[in-house]
Amino acid sequence: MTRQYQALIFDVFGTLVDWRNSAAGELREFFSAKGIATDPHEFADACRGEYQPSMAPIRSGEREYVPLDILHLENLETILDRFGLAEKISEEERKGLSRCWERLHPWPDSVPGLSRLRKSYLLAPCSNGSIALLSRLAKFGGLPFDAILGADIARNYKPQPEVYLGSVAALGLEPAEVVMVAAHNDDLVAARKYGLATAFVPRKTEYGPRQDADLEPTSDWEFVAEDMNRLADLLA
Amino acid sequence: MTRQYQALIFDVFGTLVDWRNSAAGELREFFSAKGIATDPHEFADACRGEYQPSMAPIRSGEREYVPLDILHLENLETILDRFGLAEKISEEERKGLSRCWERLHPWPDSVPGLSRLRKSYLLAPCSNGSIALLSRLAKFGGLPFDAILGADIARNYKPQPEVYLGSVAALGLEPAEVVMVAAHNDDLVAARKYGLATAFVPRKTEYGPRQDADLEPTSDWEFVAEDMNRLADLLA
Repeated sequence: MTRQYQALIFDVFGTLVDWRNSAAGELREFFSAKGIATDPHEFADACRGEYQPSMAPIRSGEREYVPLDILHLENLETILDRFGLAEKISEEERKGLSRCWERLHPWPDSVPGLSRLRKSYLLAPCSNGSIALLSRLAKFGGLPFDAILGADIARNYKPQPEVYLGSVAALGLEPAEVVMVAAHNDDLVAARKYGLATAFVPRKTEYGPRQDADLEPTSDWEFVAEDMNRLADLLA
Repeated sequence: MTRQYQALIFDVFGTLVDWRNSAAGELREFFSAKGIATDPHEFADACRGEYQPSMAPIRSGEREYVPLDILHLENLETILDRFGLAEKISEEERKGLSRCWERLHPWPDSVPGLSRLRKSYLLAPCSNGSIALLSRLAKFGGLPFDAILGADIARNYKPQPEVYLGSVAALGLEPAEVVMVAAHNDDLVAARKYGLATAFVPRKTEYGPRQDADLEPTSDWEFVAEDMNRLADLLA
């Protein structure tokens, strides 16, 4: 019998790692050393607020593909300006700080859940992060992947079809053999549209204690699990 | 201090895995079950003999890029014909057999040596194998990589410059920050030409007991080590 699913591909920011508290933690240390009073969570949220808008011109074809590392640096500069901090932070400090996205901590269940899933499936990120970013992020957090897929492979950003379909093709599989795992319903809407199976793993505090989106599945996703350990129970 | 090298990228067939004995082992079992008297090492050598010629039209631009998985299947069919076995092997058996390249055993030092190196460097294959092939091969043999790079990223085959430079760029690095590790001097000639550092790890029986090439370094490579454990001693 051939197993129905051969591979699981994962959204990363929010789904596997806690970007908000990780980035705020780095910012807190950095601001404190510089004597800057800005709230680090507010600053991290503002950076993340630039995330979708910064990819929009690439999705629309208005701007040529550049890896997310470059967008992260641009977005940081935008937010430093907005918070009136531009003068206080050197070029080198900006570069170092913009790479905090390579040092995000996994949610506690991510590594154990993926380690179990990896025994039965090929695992890869299908993220908007670049190979450069995700390979370092996976190494930092010990996330066990068999390959790094996503935006860099497709030279475009989710939810464009080629990101999902390019990741599936890179594994030599058909869309129906691959499960897209995400904490965001809209990611799964796109994945399903292009023929992938879907798994929803909510992260109810990704955006902090007042998060009001993606608390529940908005469709009949093939799998719904409260964390990666439960997903491993369902798929093992 | 910034370390001089950030990443090591590896040739795979021959350098990390013993393709000849692994493929012959599968062929021996398969031929024996089918009552075929062909020598499995001779057959494996013949398949490998098609390897370079099959990539030549892609390197020259005569043929559009197709992943190595497709060339492996085509080459198998050529060799089945040559050995007069075409009639005896079904379509499905050919497909299964051509995927023996996903099930090659690492040399005994590959996994321990890479596991040590991975603590200090980003590790990735820079191979002519596809992401589909290499992710399964790495999983099969337990080869610890941080990303899968090489031909599929560049959509061309070594020794074309974009394979080395595309792999370096995917890691967000400069060529001089990356060491190319190979058992084949010509791979290192190309890597050096495009600015990478080089490490030669000879595999003196890759082509069997009568191998007469790549027994010694043919240039002053930055590193020469008798196996991956010794390379880890040099680079740790």
